[in-house]
Amino acid sequence: MAEDYTELGQQVMAAQPFTRLLGAHLTHLSPGKAELEIPLRLEHNQQHGLVHGGVISYLVDDVLTFAGGSVLGPDVLTLEIKLNYLRPAVGERLVARGWVVSAGRRNAVCRCDVLVVNEGVETLCAAGQGTIARRGDGDGTAS
Amino acid sequence: MAEDYTELGQQVMAAQPFTRLLGAHLTHLSPGKAELEIPLRLEHNQQHGLVHGGVISYLVDDVLTFAGGSVLGPDVLTLEIKLNYLRPAVGERLVARGWVVSAGRRNAVCRCDVLVVNEGVETLCAAGQGTIARRGDGDGTAS
Amino acid sequence: MAEDYTELGQQVMAAQPFTRLLGAHLTHLSPGKAELEIPLRLEHNQQHGLVHGGVISYLVDDVLTFAGGSVLGPDVLTLEIKLNYLRPAVGERLVARGWVVSAGRRNAVCRCDVLVVNEGVETLCAAGQGTIARRGDGDGTAS
Amino acid sequence: MAEDYTELGQQVMAAQPFTRLLGAHLTHLSPGKAELEIPLRLEHNQQHGLVHGGVISYLVDDVLTFAGGSVLGPDVLTLEIKLNYLRPAVGERLVARGWVVSAGRRNAVCRCDVLVVNEGVETLCAAGQGTIARRGDGDGTAS
Repeated sequence: MAEDYTELGQQVMAAQPFTRLLGAHLTHLSPGKAELEIPLRLEHNQQHGLVHGGVISYLVDDVLTFAGGSVLGPDVLTLEIKLNYLRPAVGERLVARGWVVSAGRRNAVCRCDVLVVNEGVETLCAAGQGTIARRGDGDGTAS
Repeated sequence: MAEDYTELGQQVMAAQPFTRLLGAHLTHLSPGKAELEIPLRLEHNQQHGLVHGGVISYLVDDVLTFAGGSVLGPDVLTLEIKLNYLRPAVGERLVARGWVVSAGRRNAVCRCDVLVVNEGVETLCAAGQGTIARRGDGDGTAS
Repeated sequence: MAEDYTELGQQVMAAQPFTRLLGAHLTHLSPGKAELEIPLRLEHNQQHGLVHGGVISYLVDDVLTFAGGSVLGPDVLTLEIKLNYLRPAVGERLVARGWVVSAGRRNAVCRCDVLVVNEGVETLCAAGQGTIARRGDGDGTAS
Repeated sequence: MAEDYTELGQQVMAAQPFTRLLGAHLTHLSPGKAELEIPLRLEHNQQHGLVHGGVISYLVDDVLTFAGGSVLGPDVLTLEIKLNYLRPAVGERLVARGWVVSAGRRNAVCRCDVLVVNEGVETLCAAGQGTIARRGDGDGTAS
């Protein structure tokens, strides 16, 4: 079943031009959990050779949305996200792990951790939290 | 003087590979204020033809950082951001306006509005708030 | 009309035991705007004689809720709040001003500023942002 | 050693008039972890007999501050907090558990869960995240 979710999620990812532009892919999706990954390239950096904060905020947005969608259904919106940058990211790839903290009929509150993998070592570089809502009811944008 | 700030900010932007990947540019920088813009292309979208939330979170991250840097100096880090997505974005371009709410010796708290421009009409599509810190003192990532 | 809103809001406040415990009162309510006030007493302080952060977070929670309720109707829930503490608060009273940034059918996103008044001078001491939802549909708590 | 931390934390709590007004007490403090509790009384409620959101936001503020202080030292400030209300709280007491996600020289990023205990059953009612800073260096308020 996790395979089915992951496959479905990967189809959604493949249909997102922005996700392709960034080179992100979904590595896991199951009820309540999502994992995304970005192999890092020069074009993800800011001016000092570190990963740009916007790459990390994209991952937070998307992994929270997938986590929320895994329990609310595929037609969801991101209402809001909050993230703390914990340390500069340099490495081979970013991994974002999101999970559902609480889900109601309409909304799911999710958290995520973003890790940078450098020479095989994972280091936490951001922590996020946000609200995902079932669509068709109003507000927010769609990730 | 606003010209000097804007020019300096544009040099920083030009040195950010991720900013170039997204096609963003700085249109204004002066003490306490920053404005960024992204002409929208297909590759900024998610699967339903709307702008991906990650494009908007990038803008929030970067415009808050520039606003904070305009009062703290160019060597800053983004500690944290929070944003609310207000409505789906479709249009010709996104404009992000950031301003400093309060600045101390080490940190600046900033807010921003992100607007989508469609056939010349601006509509608010996201609202952000975050903390920027002078670097060299510890935590956070760099945008 | 603002008088009607303010009066209605004051009845809600009067029915909240926690608001009475803190000595808060509503000074203004009109569509899209709310203002609350707390005359400061010793019991609002932390151990260093400054106003406790929890008093400020209470004000953020309540003024955002009233602002949201002014456009969504009285039966609302607070989904989430975020606040930045800007400087230590010492003075005669706290004033919280909230306003609606964007409202849909179900949710309203609001911002607020919290000011401390000391010898007649207002100083900004916190900035908040949050989401208020119409109740009866699911999630969140009620302020 | 956890006993020493807890004892020290309880002395800080006892010196906070606002904490006494709310009836909160610290039940655990050790490096990277804090737990607070409030036995619920009528005066913690809003107008519908549920716990007021401001009681929960106070707990989030304070438990994150204690968690951060457990690694940064006792002289800390809360820079910012974010919380999601997950469900209405009714019960005998609230328990807030905070932990450090990442700590640098100056700042610690912490998360917390707030649970309501009703007839012995714990239910998650809020999730928080925030930044605590060592004081003496600038910005923010003190909890």
